[in-house]
Amino acid sequence: MASRRCIGEFELIARYFAPLARTFAGAGGLESDNAYLPADGRNDIAVKTDTIVSGVHFLDDESPERVAAKALRVCLSDLAAGGATPLAYQLSLALPEQWEERWVAGFARGLAADQRRYGIVLCGGDTVATPGPLTITITAFGQVPRGKGLGRGGARAGDDLWASGTIGDAALGLRAVRGKLKGLGVRDRKVLEDRYRLPRPRNALGIHLIGIARAAADVSDGLLADVGHIAAASRLAVHIEREMVPLSAAARRALAVEPALWADVLGGGDDYELVIAVPPRRAGTLQEAALQARVKVTRIGRFAKGRGVGLTVGGRATPIPRTGYVHF
Amino acid sequence: MASRRCIGEFELIARYFAPLARTFAGAGGLESDNAYLPADGRNDIAVKTDTIVSGVHFLDDESPERVAAKALRVCLSDLAAGGATPLAYQLSLALPEQWEERWVAGFARGLAADQRRYGIVLCGGDTVATPGPLTITITAFGQVPRGKGLGRGGARAGDDLWASGTIGDAALGLRAVRGKLKGLGVRDRKVLEDRYRLPRPRNALGIHLIGIARAAADVSDGLLADVGHIAAASRLAVHIEREMVPLSAAARRALAVEPALWADVLGGGDDYELVIAVPPRRAGTLQEAALQARVKVTRIGRFAKGRGVGLTVGGRATPIPRTGYVHF
Repeated sequence: MASRRCIGEFELIARYFAPLARTFAGAGGLESDNAYLPADGRNDIAVKTDTIVSGVHFLDDESPERVAAKALRVCLSDLAAGGATPLAYQLSLALPEQWEERWVAGFARGLAADQRRYGIVLCGGDTVATPGPLTITITAFGQVPRGKGLGRGGARAGDDLWASGTIGDAALGLRAVRGKLKGLGVRDRKVLEDRYRLPRPRNALGIHLIGIARAAADVSDGLLADVGHIAAASRLAVHIEREMVPLSAAARRALAVEPALWADVLGGGDDYELVIAVPPRRAGTLQEAALQARVKVTRIGRFAKGRGVGLTVGGRATPIPRTGYVHF
Repeated sequence: MASRRCIGEFELIARYFAPLARTFAGAGGLESDNAYLPADGRNDIAVKTDTIVSGVHFLDDESPERVAAKALRVCLSDLAAGGATPLAYQLSLALPEQWEERWVAGFARGLAADQRRYGIVLCGGDTVATPGPLTITITAFGQVPRGKGLGRGGARAGDDLWASGTIGDAALGLRAVRGKLKGLGVRDRKVLEDRYRLPRPRNALGIHLIGIARAAADVSDGLLADVGHIAAASRLAVHIEREMVPLSAAARRALAVEPALWADVLGGGDDYELVIAVPPRRAGTLQEAALQARVKVTRIGRFAKGRGVGLTVGGRATPIPRTGYVHF
């Protein structure tokens, strides 16, 4: 208790956050009210805000390093989907009344590690007390060539739908955390849990997407939901072949035990993979970029005239299991 | 209860927030993961994040319109202090479990009104559920000439300290709200309460400050604290003459009844006036700008070599009553 009273807001910033902002000239050492982001006539700044709440978006007992990583990476994942190169971020931290300094220290360590990993740097923010749970808002900035940033709209009929990495691991991992994943070995459960607890955003791939993709999104609400968002924004239908959806070995074993888990795999959120609309003639360029980024990409479907998301299993239409994470 | 179940996140955005973002091309109708902020080689984008929590930064029973105004204006006030012209903002809204659609509607109305008033526009954000109190984070963007954005550092010995408007009304207003302001008429109490409930940021003045001011801050933590931040960041001392501090008629009457309230006037937060370091030779230019902005400015002190904040009453040094709002 003593430790939380003997440090004020300004010391907290000076001790934990100002070092993170040191290399960003426009942050002014976090001592000024504004941060000034340089930008030139050739670039746009991509901006993304995400809020995560303890007990809602991460487990209450999660380590501060992982909470920091999650808060930052959910934003980085969106920058990746936009084709943007990470630049800087603002952090708002609403700390519950019983906060401890060592928690904040661990949180700052987690941020520092990810700053190095993803080439992003703190440039300002706010810290407040809350009678509620720990709440973190990050606004991340990335750079893209002027007018070229990717969105959900822009896919055309005939474009292929690609997915990065493997799909469904995070949803199965959440089940594992809750003790609701039976018949799997300890190691498989651990792999899936890790995927839920710690997003691995695809920025290494994302920075190559400009000029290749017509539209993209990250899988945060669930594969079907997020692909559905691209289709809706592009005023198209999209058809996904379930057998093409890339799965981890652990997910494949979980589905062998309990095929009903397909609903989780296709509908569950938090994978933080990319789903990408690419004209067929650019398939080779995408695969080269993926090779360079050391990320697997898999063609899982195609956009067509019409509306909605169609799912086929072995070529036969099948009902959509559910429509993704509902925020309220 | 029915109303909060029949509207999802995407509808909520489409119905209440997308209209606010309509005129900002880079927002993509809030349908894309990123917003793209255009900027050119002659300008910097000033960025400011502020979080407000129900029961902490505003009263639980405050109207949604006023909550919206407060959330936006605390950021606008910082842009004003930076000399920045408001451009756009990101909004994160953490809604408590019992949220109601009509509350969100009122909140959006409040935002719409201030968008018109201050020439700023929503460009993206996030909405989440929280088991805690309503929590709002806004990241606001403004434009300043490249490298010219004002901060707390930069004041020089010999610069005058100026304040806009009147000081201390918000702190007295908070007392009035709590029934702790005796011997004042209803009208005076109302004036002071209004100043607490609804910040009136000085953006009309702020946009003129580049080329006039060397440093500036807004009074959010309290006059002495915020002036102290300028002095500390500029590695200077600052001397304030209490008789020069501009007061409203209501505040003057409150102080006549209870002189001990000077502690609130000088130490209390939430005034959202500007404190500005200006070389003496630019006093005329500042006053012209203030006239144009229809804001009163008053010279209240001077920066000098040394450290710390000095307060004089009738020319005699007096102890500092308290050092401003403590965030934890």
